[in-house]
Amino acid sequence: MEKFSYSYLFDFSSRVLQRMGFSEEHAAESARVFLAAELRGISTHGVIRLADYYKLWEAGRINTTPDIRITHESPSTAVIDGDGTIGMLPAIRAMNTAITKARTAGTGWVAVRNSSNFGIAGYYAMMALAHDMIGFACTNASPLVAPTFSAIPMLGTNPMAVAIPAGQQPPFVADFATTPVTRGKFTIAAKKGEKLSFGYAQDAEGKPTDDPTAIEHGGSMLPLGGDREHGSHKGYCLGAIVDILSAVLSGANFGPFVPPMMSYLPLLEQKSGEGWGHFFGAMRVDAFMPADEFKTRMDFWMETMRNARPAKGNEKVLIPGEPERENEERISREGIALLPQVVDDLVIIAKKSGINFEEN
Amino acid sequence: MEKFSYSYLFDFSSRVLQRMGFSEEHAAESARVFLAAELRGISTHGVIRLADYYKLWEAGRINTTPDIRITHESPSTAVIDGDGTIGMLPAIRAMNTAITKARTAGTGWVAVRNSSNFGIAGYYAMMALAHDMIGFACTNASPLVAPTFSAIPMLGTNPMAVAIPAGQQPPFVADFATTPVTRGKFTIAAKKGEKLSFGYAQDAEGKPTDDPTAIEHGGSMLPLGGDREHGSHKGYCLGAIVDILSAVLSGANFGPFVPPMMSYLPLLEQKSGEGWGHFFGAMRVDAFMPADEFKTRMDFWMETMRNARPAKGNEKVLIPGEPERENEERISREGIALLPQVVDDLVIIAKKSGINFEEN
Repeated sequence: MEKFSYSYLFDFSSRVLQRMGFSEEHAAESARVFLAAELRGISTHGVIRLADYYKLWEAGRINTTPDIRITHESPSTAVIDGDGTIGMLPAIRAMNTAITKARTAGTGWVAVRNSSNFGIAGYYAMMALAHDMIGFACTNASPLVAPTFSAIPMLGTNPMAVAIPAGQQPPFVADFATTPVTRGKFTIAAKKGEKLSFGYAQDAEGKPTDDPTAIEHGGSMLPLGGDREHGSHKGYCLGAIVDILSAVLSGANFGPFVPPMMSYLPLLEQKSGEGWGHFFGAMRVDAFMPADEFKTRMDFWMETMRNARPAKGNEKVLIPGEPERENEERISREGIALLPQVVDDLVIIAKKSGINFEEN
Repeated sequence: MEKFSYSYLFDFSSRVLQRMGFSEEHAAESARVFLAAELRGISTHGVIRLADYYKLWEAGRINTTPDIRITHESPSTAVIDGDGTIGMLPAIRAMNTAITKARTAGTGWVAVRNSSNFGIAGYYAMMALAHDMIGFACTNASPLVAPTFSAIPMLGTNPMAVAIPAGQQPPFVADFATTPVTRGKFTIAAKKGEKLSFGYAQDAEGKPTDDPTAIEHGGSMLPLGGDREHGSHKGYCLGAIVDILSAVLSGANFGPFVPPMMSYLPLLEQKSGEGWGHFFGAMRVDAFMPADEFKTRMDFWMETMRNARPAKGNEKVLIPGEPERENEERISREGIALLPQVVDDLVIIAKKSGINFEEN
């Protein structure tokens, strides 16, 4: 795999986004989120997605000169209309609004409609950390997941992220889809000719399957828990809560109505709102106790978990966010490795938009 | 099993609680939560727990004349000290405080310390519904669950509940432990001499087991997901988030420091705060969009999910809260069935406190 520096890919992404019509500031804001995903080792949400957005823009499905605005608010809440643009922009605006509300009201909660895929949820939750706030972010997504007892997908993988500041220790950052694994695992298994574990997918009739191409054949992903016996109804609850907060409460499309992010997929005939929906929150720590006291307690919480006797064959208990932070340190140092197919896509976009892309 | 009417068990529970020293109002508030659990078919949190509280009180571990007070607040937040009493009282006070804050600030968020087991989380989340608010409740609990890669229990089953109002449809009420199943399943399997499914428990070394007595032999429950391959690190994240919001943020004991609720178990040597911790939230729906519009959207969300084609061998997709509501209708009509052991316990308490308890 070829490796690229952060600044090279950031500049390239920003320039592509500007060619699509985004302002310099909007392009930089979005590029920062793509690159944050690369650094944290979540490359499924990295520059690989730039091509998807480019094609959506070519298909006239992304507004690159959005009027992102607050349409409803109270002292601790707001609703933001993303005006059909790339998800990162209303997401950043919403999280900043939540932080501003939290400064005066103690907490801030912002629902977003008329948006699209926003990349990694953790990016927005982590924006709260610098303000000594607890951050929360979640989003709905195109339907891939079957609720317990359903034969068909009705919900997205609907990820949620929670970021909590600590003192001497790095922050707690949980960022996870409400499914056992991401869809990426399916693609990798299919390419390798391997089977999935049971508990990830079901076939078109709703029966458990280990076929990694199940989704292409009318099957679905399963909620966290996998089957009813192992609590899939709880994973379904989580996905449903994310969907309702993100989309029912904001006025976005919910459940099976969430529009596809792939330009080759037709738009759905029926709508239940505008675009995708997200939901964000910020809670000022010192709206509950002095921030220093809280951070000392969080340090102790983390040390306590880390010092638990490990299960046989394991090294230690991890604190949520640790693996991604280790990735960030390593990848910042070593460079961002891109798969040949991703590089090919970037070369195509570069040619189309008349921007130079140097392969190493 | 013997059956009792709601009013009979409510009066009996209230009188026992008053004999323990609770005021008439406090006794009624707590009894209402015990009985709500019975009606919703969650008898593990019903009057069976009255005996536990009675014994805790005999051991001097429950304050029946508490001074429950707000110790810290902002426009949308508060912290409440439960003064070492039965969990229901500070929980009800906290949820009412959250609702009051939400009236003016749009949302209200209340952390509670120095409390104890509060019964079913759903009771408090549902308090928001009558106010056209979305309710949230969660609590930490005595350590039974091993984080991913830990050999020992470090977190409780840490349940969370979310209640969301609808229009023509009954409300959405999700109320679930962040583990695949409740501990009750272990007890039942052990009594029947049956094995557990894998994915529920591990042994003292942290290896997967199907032994329903694993916990008694140094083992642990597993987080939702069951194992790393099926996303147990996400269940661990959920349990951790509940623990941190409930206890780190409130000043309660967190993780392995949460004190036992059984009078025969010794108190722990080390503390990390006061008592158990809970966390509550209320969000005014019309702080986001007109309540009627939201409720119509929720009705449509529910109809959409309910109309999903069912998986082979299943009847229909359920809306969270549906099974409990059906229980409530049936049990209100037919009476509350109590196991002989539970009746025996109530007879003992009745004798001790000089209250008449009529077996049918």
